[in-house]
Amino acid sequence: MARWYCGRSLRRVIAKLDLTSDPVALTETLVNIPSVSRQEDELAAAVELALQEQAGHLEITRSGNAVLARTNLGLPSRVVLAGHLDTVPINDNFPARRTDDGDEEILHGCGSVDMKGGDAVMLYLAATAIEPSHDLTFVFYDCEEIDATQNGLGRIERDLPDWLAGDLAIVCEPSNALVEAGCQGTMRIELRTKGRRAHTARAWMGSNAIHALGSALRILEDYEARTVEIDGCLYREGLQAVSVSGGVQGNVVPDSAVLAINFRFAPDRSGEQAEEHLRALFAAYDVTVVDLAVGAMPGLSAPAARELIEAAGGEPVAKLGWTDVARFAARGLPAVNFGPGDPTLAHTREEHVPVAQIRRCAEVLSRFLLDSRG
Amino acid sequence: MARWYCGRSLRRVIAKLDLTSDPVALTETLVNIPSVSRQEDELAAAVELALQEQAGHLEITRSGNAVLARTNLGLPSRVVLAGHLDTVPINDNFPARRTDDGDEEILHGCGSVDMKGGDAVMLYLAATAIEPSHDLTFVFYDCEEIDATQNGLGRIERDLPDWLAGDLAIVCEPSNALVEAGCQGTMRIELRTKGRRAHTARAWMGSNAIHALGSALRILEDYEARTVEIDGCLYREGLQAVSVSGGVQGNVVPDSAVLAINFRFAPDRSGEQAEEHLRALFAAYDVTVVDLAVGAMPGLSAPAARELIEAAGGEPVAKLGWTDVARFAARGLPAVNFGPGDPTLAHTREEHVPVAQIRRCAEVLSRFLLDSRG
Repeated sequence: MARWYCGRSLRRVIAKLDLTSDPVALTETLVNIPSVSRQEDELAAAVELALQEQAGHLEITRSGNAVLARTNLGLPSRVVLAGHLDTVPINDNFPARRTDDGDEEILHGCGSVDMKGGDAVMLYLAATAIEPSHDLTFVFYDCEEIDATQNGLGRIERDLPDWLAGDLAIVCEPSNALVEAGCQGTMRIELRTKGRRAHTARAWMGSNAIHALGSALRILEDYEARTVEIDGCLYREGLQAVSVSGGVQGNVVPDSAVLAINFRFAPDRSGEQAEEHLRALFAAYDVTVVDLAVGAMPGLSAPAARELIEAAGGEPVAKLGWTDVARFAARGLPAVNFGPGDPTLAHTREEHVPVAQIRRCAEVLSRFLLDSRG
Repeated sequence: MARWYCGRSLRRVIAKLDLTSDPVALTETLVNIPSVSRQEDELAAAVELALQEQAGHLEITRSGNAVLARTNLGLPSRVVLAGHLDTVPINDNFPARRTDDGDEEILHGCGSVDMKGGDAVMLYLAATAIEPSHDLTFVFYDCEEIDATQNGLGRIERDLPDWLAGDLAIVCEPSNALVEAGCQGTMRIELRTKGRRAHTARAWMGSNAIHALGSALRILEDYEARTVEIDGCLYREGLQAVSVSGGVQGNVVPDSAVLAINFRFAPDRSGEQAEEHLRALFAAYDVTVVDLAVGAMPGLSAPAARELIEAAGGEPVAKLGWTDVARFAARGLPAVNFGPGDPTLAHTREEHVPVAQIRRCAEVLSRFLLDSRG
C-alpha cells in the first residue's frame, strides 16, 4: 500500500504521487489508491495535485472526476493522450504486489493492466516532456468501465470539446506495448421467432419457435468471417451467438424464442453497412439492432502516426476489441492504442502487467515526443 | 353457488350433495366447492358424507383427502372408476355459471371440464347403480394437478393397493365423451453442449456452445414422427424442443447451452426403447433423461373394454396426452379415459363443459354397467 494513502475516512489528506522518477513505482502507487467506477474522487484529487506541483508548465482543468492537462506551445501539431482512472470492482486483488521469477518482474493488482500502467506512463510524460515536439493534451477520465452513457470522455466531448482536438490520439489501454491501430465495430442484434403454442401431445396443432431458430444457427455455423487488411493491419471479423432463450414449460410447444448475436466488424464497414449485411444474412428473420458502436479506421498515414510507429520500431497491429479510440476517430483524429500489458487479462482477478512493458511504453513515447522534434 | 355451501370459516358444516337426481346440477354444485390441490378437505368431506347417506350399499373408506367406495357383490369382474377431486388454481372463473345460446347449454367454471363433470357422473353411478353387472370401485382422489410425487392415486397404490384391483379402469378425465384408449408416454431429455469461452472480438480462440445446438435443431426440424395403429387406435408421436438457454454476456462466446426436448411416444415403445431411440437420434450430444412416464397400451381386447365400447356406440380413439390411465395399465388393468368435455380446455380460464356430454357419459356408463349384465 502507498505510504501516503490515508483511506476514505480521511478524505482531505490527498495521496502524493512522484511523477518523475519511476513509472513502475508510480503504477504501484496508483493501484494502491482504489478507484472503482464512480469512486475515482480520491485518485482524481491525487492526480490533480501532483500535476499542479510537478508539471507547472501545463494548463490544468477538472471535469467531474476527470483531470485534463495540456501544453500551449503553439506547435504545428498536437497529440492527445488519454487514459481512464477507474477500474472494475476489486476482486481479491488489492493491494498491489510484485513477483519476480528471475526471468520477468510482474506487478499484480486490480487496475494494474486496465489501465494504471498506462496512466502512470502518461503522468510520467506529463511531468517530464517539458519541451515536446508536438503540443500535448493529457486526459485522465472517469467511468469508462460502466455503462457507456456514464463515460467521462463522453462528458468531456460535450462540455470541453476543444480539449480533445489534435492530430493524433493515443489511448494508453493495454496493447502489449504494441501500436494497435483503429478498432473494430461491434453490433448486437436479436432474432425473434414466433410460433403457435400447443400441448406437446398434439404438437401438430402448434408451430415451434425454437425449431425456427435452426436455420439461423446453420447460417452462423457456415459463416465465413472476413479478414480485412487496412494500412497493413489485419482486422478479423466475427459473428457469434451470445445468448439464446425460449420455452414455456415442459409440455408446451413454445411460441417465441430469441437469439442474440454479436457481430464484430472491420472498420471499413460503417454501422449502416454492418446492419445491412446482417439483415441480408438473416432475411428470413425479425431482426432488431440492440447495440452498436462503430469501429475506427487505423489512419496510419497521418504524419504523427508514422512517427509513433517509427519510435515503436515495429509493425502496427489491428485492434480487434472496441475501445475509446473510436470516439477520437469519430472526431477526425487518427487514433491508436498503445499501453503496457495483455488486454485479455483485463477484468480478471489475476490481472497483472510486466514491468518491462511499462518501461518500454514510457521510453517509446518519450522518444516519439522528444526525438522526432521537427 | 350451492345453497348448502357455507364457506371455509364454518368448516364443520359439510355441503350436501344430491347424487341421484341430475349429474349436471351435481357438477355445478361440485364446481362451487373450491378444491384447489391440497385444499380438497371440504369437497372430500362432502363426497364422503353424501356416499354414506345416499349409497349405503357401498363399502366406504378414506385415504387423506381421497374417498374410496366399492361394491362387494362377488361378481366375476370388477370395474374401477377414478377421478381426481382437485383443480388447478381458480383463475377468475368461480363460481359456476351456465350459458345457453339456444343451440348448446354450457356449464362454465374452474374444474368444470377437469374434472368435476366426470366426478359428478361417478357420484351419480355410485348412488344409482345398485345392481351392476360388474363389481364397482369408485376412487375420488386428491393432488392430481401438482407434482406427481404428491398424486393421491400414488398414495393409494402404496397404502390400499387392493382398492385398485379390477378388470377394467375408467378414468373419467375429459375425452369429449369418447372412449380414449391407452395413452402415450412422455419423456423429457436435455442436450448439453460445451464450448470454450472467449471474447467475441477474438472469437476464433473460443468455441460456441450455442452454435453447437444447430444440428440438434436440424434433427428436430427434419424428424418424421410415427403414427402407430394399435387396437384400431391411432397414436401420433411428437418430438419438440420445449426450452433452450445459453449465453454468458453480450461480448462473450458462450461455453455452455442446454436444449430440452419432449418426446411423446406411442405405447408400443417401452421407456427404455424411447430412450434408446433418442440417444441414437442425438448420438453426437450429451443426453440426460430428466423426466419419464411410460404410456399405456389400449388393451381393448379385454371383455369389459369391448362391452364399454359397445355401450358407447362408437369407435375408440387414441389418448395422446399422458393420464393416470397409465398407472392402471402398469398394474395390469386395461384402462381408458371416458369423461365429458374437451381436454384442450383443461387449465384454461375459459374451461367449460357442454351439459349434453355430462348426460351422455352418465347414460353410456349406466347402460354399460347395467344392461350388459351377463
